[in-house]
Amino acid sequence: MQLSLSWIQFTVDVMSSVDAQILLVGDELLAGELADANGPWFAERLTEAGFRVSAIRILPDEHAAIRDAVLQAVRSASLVVVAGGLGPTSDDLTTEAIADAFGLSLQLDEAQWERIRNLFRVMRGNEPPPGNEKQATIPAGATTIPNGNGTALGYLIEHEGALVGVLPGPPRENRPMFSDELLPRVLERLELPKPEPTRLFRTFGLAESVVAERLSGVEAQFPQLRIAYQFKFPEILVKLRVPAGERAAAEEAATAIEAKLAPHVYGHGEVTLPAVLGRELAARGLRIATAESCTAGLAAKLLTDAAGSSQWFDRGMVVYTNRAKREWLGVSRELLEQDGAVSEPVCEAMVAGLLERSDADVAFAISGIAGPGGGTPDKPVGTVCFGWGDRRRIHTDTRQFHWDREYNRLISAWVACWHIREMIVQS
Amino acid sequence: MQLSLSWIQFTVDVMSSVDAQILLVGDELLAGELADANGPWFAERLTEAGFRVSAIRILPDEHAAIRDAVLQAVRSASLVVVAGGLGPTSDDLTTEAIADAFGLSLQLDEAQWERIRNLFRVMRGNEPPPGNEKQATIPAGATTIPNGNGTALGYLIEHEGALVGVLPGPPRENRPMFSDELLPRVLERLELPKPEPTRLFRTFGLAESVVAERLSGVEAQFPQLRIAYQFKFPEILVKLRVPAGERAAAEEAATAIEAKLAPHVYGHGEVTLPAVLGRELAARGLRIATAESCTAGLAAKLLTDAAGSSQWFDRGMVVYTNRAKREWLGVSRELLEQDGAVSEPVCEAMVAGLLERSDADVAFAISGIAGPGGGTPDKPVGTVCFGWGDRRRIHTDTRQFHWDREYNRLISAWVACWHIREMIVQS
Repeated sequence: MQLSLSWIQFTVDVMSSVDAQILLVGDELLAGELADANGPWFAERLTEAGFRVSAIRILPDEHAAIRDAVLQAVRSASLVVVAGGLGPTSDDLTTEAIADAFGLSLQLDEAQWERIRNLFRVMRGNEPPPGNEKQATIPAGATTIPNGNGTALGYLIEHEGALVGVLPGPPRENRPMFSDELLPRVLERLELPKPEPTRLFRTFGLAESVVAERLSGVEAQFPQLRIAYQFKFPEILVKLRVPAGERAAAEEAATAIEAKLAPHVYGHGEVTLPAVLGRELAARGLRIATAESCTAGLAAKLLTDAAGSSQWFDRGMVVYTNRAKREWLGVSRELLEQDGAVSEPVCEAMVAGLLERSDADVAFAISGIAGPGGGTPDKPVGTVCFGWGDRRRIHTDTRQFHWDREYNRLISAWVACWHIREMIVQS
Repeated sequence: MQLSLSWIQFTVDVMSSVDAQILLVGDELLAGELADANGPWFAERLTEAGFRVSAIRILPDEHAAIRDAVLQAVRSASLVVVAGGLGPTSDDLTTEAIADAFGLSLQLDEAQWERIRNLFRVMRGNEPPPGNEKQATIPAGATTIPNGNGTALGYLIEHEGALVGVLPGPPRENRPMFSDELLPRVLERLELPKPEPTRLFRTFGLAESVVAERLSGVEAQFPQLRIAYQFKFPEILVKLRVPAGERAAAEEAATAIEAKLAPHVYGHGEVTLPAVLGRELAARGLRIATAESCTAGLAAKLLTDAAGSSQWFDRGMVVYTNRAKREWLGVSRELLEQDGAVSEPVCEAMVAGLLERSDADVAFAISGIAGPGGGTPDKPVGTVCFGWGDRRRIHTDTRQFHWDREYNRLISAWVACWHIREMIVQS
């Protein structure tokens, strides 16, 4: 038997990763009453940590189904993460099913039970109902994972070389348990190298295919890294996944990515374009005002999503009607009749009127046809005009979008923020 | 062996439903790069149609994994829905894996291939690349499910009494294929009764536990129906699932639910409270204006989410600073100093100033501390004051919320809409 080179590479690639599976327990997830939020979150973090997630399974609150799925999972995966079914009621069966799967007895964790009783006394002034004892009960031999935000204890079991981590279902409970306790212990136990953090580049203003094309050279130059693209309207996220030991390559690749995509990388990590604009305004001691027609308050809302936004946000107007544009911003009747409300001259007049009537240093105006109705042959649905500037100069621009009403409004608010950001960064 | 009554009831309950499984294919779903949107959507519709969804599994783009999962699923489920992996590239393996699982050959559907070639000629002016032939290729004996929004053909296979429906991954392609073709054919083939539509009641202003408690009598009275609760901030949804043949009971239960929850049921089906308020304003020929401090445009944005909102929405102000409240709405400096910006007298003055400066018939004002900072012992984070009224009378109110910034702002916008709705419905 002759092995081809590509087959050898494939084998090496598979061997270098460790399989993980995610099991999510809950009838409500199978009835479509609740959309699972745990699977993608665990999957992303496990992938970043160097695991290959080979399956995500959603299971009913049934003893046999949970038991069988756990047994099947440990046969092929080195790590199984189980979430859900740790509540106090009779349909929460995860711990019993897992103990059954591995032939373990159940043991009350006295310290945890005391903690639950204290919580009930302090929060509700009474003793917990007997069912809550379940939440302090874990299979014998398991090591506990404390829960800072709830009463259900998590735990870790080792079975024939495989690790099974069991967590409660609510994300606000299981996320810190996963990141602070489960994952570090698992990496240590499996002797996996600590992963490099994934680098996240947030871009606005380029199509996904253009982003991918611009980075094709970087991908080829750094085959040991993985570049993933995610379209998260209205932005494109670029994720640079870095295996352990590849920090130097990652730094080089990150610099190359920034250069290839400049000026479209507006931020890194958990931010939004309006929040970045807010910070850049604050850093310069500038304050902004907004005049919105089709976006109708959305841009102001986005600019004030971040706490502390009173530092950079002055005030805004939602001038939905022509009369409001005239009465509140002094846009002339002639201009509105001659050019129409969706026009660059009207946006220019809106910005001028707004700067006159506020304390803001910079301002923008948005007027467009968000759809689905209201389009004309000249100005089809998705036509949006922008005005932006300061007391020295006002700029204008027109864009044509092809999304639905919601997306046309959202991208319009971002484009307005983009224009202001370009202006203040360049000046 | 003696069977207890509860065991018999359990058996009957299980026997009366038909098992379905959902298999979702895609490496990107396992790497956490894309959150699956198909599972919950199919699960909800299958549950409504009377199926018991026994598992949702997310699988990698791997021949063996797909083949084995399909074979395992048909052993216990009457219906298996598979989505994803029908693209034109080499990592799209679903059809080959399914053909392998059931020992079927692959056949090119000539009509579909001709359709794809035509699409390419019209849309791009060239012939499709050879890989696209895959999207017109299905297992022999399968019946096709046409795709109105893409090039990948869906299909239905029968294997030893079980049905396997295979659909492309993108929701905008597979949802109409599922609802218009797959589900009706499956119900006919399995001779299942056509399900009654689920009734959806949207409530605002009651806690989930209160909603459940008020409906406990209805649940007991109609054991053949299923009432499910869903907390979808800031509202509580009540879903009444109706088995085939139970329409009369459903009508009676629906009437009882309305009566128990009145006046908190604000709508049914796919609506929001701001949209319902908009319709009710339009029906009365009334127009609304908004003055927002802490919500900063969110209420105006929500009121204009629906197309045609220019019918009821006049205009709005985002008066984030005290100076803006003075200059734009005429709120007196004395009032702002004496009562503070977050106070009922200031909200009253904001509404009065707004009605003076607009064409609106009704108006509301929102001023509060959304958090996380800005709280005081007197007015802690989450304190929000409301004013609302018309040219005859202005009302005020203060609420204390305990959510985060985002949720405090969202619920405040809804409460303002709620107040106006109560006012116009009662007058």
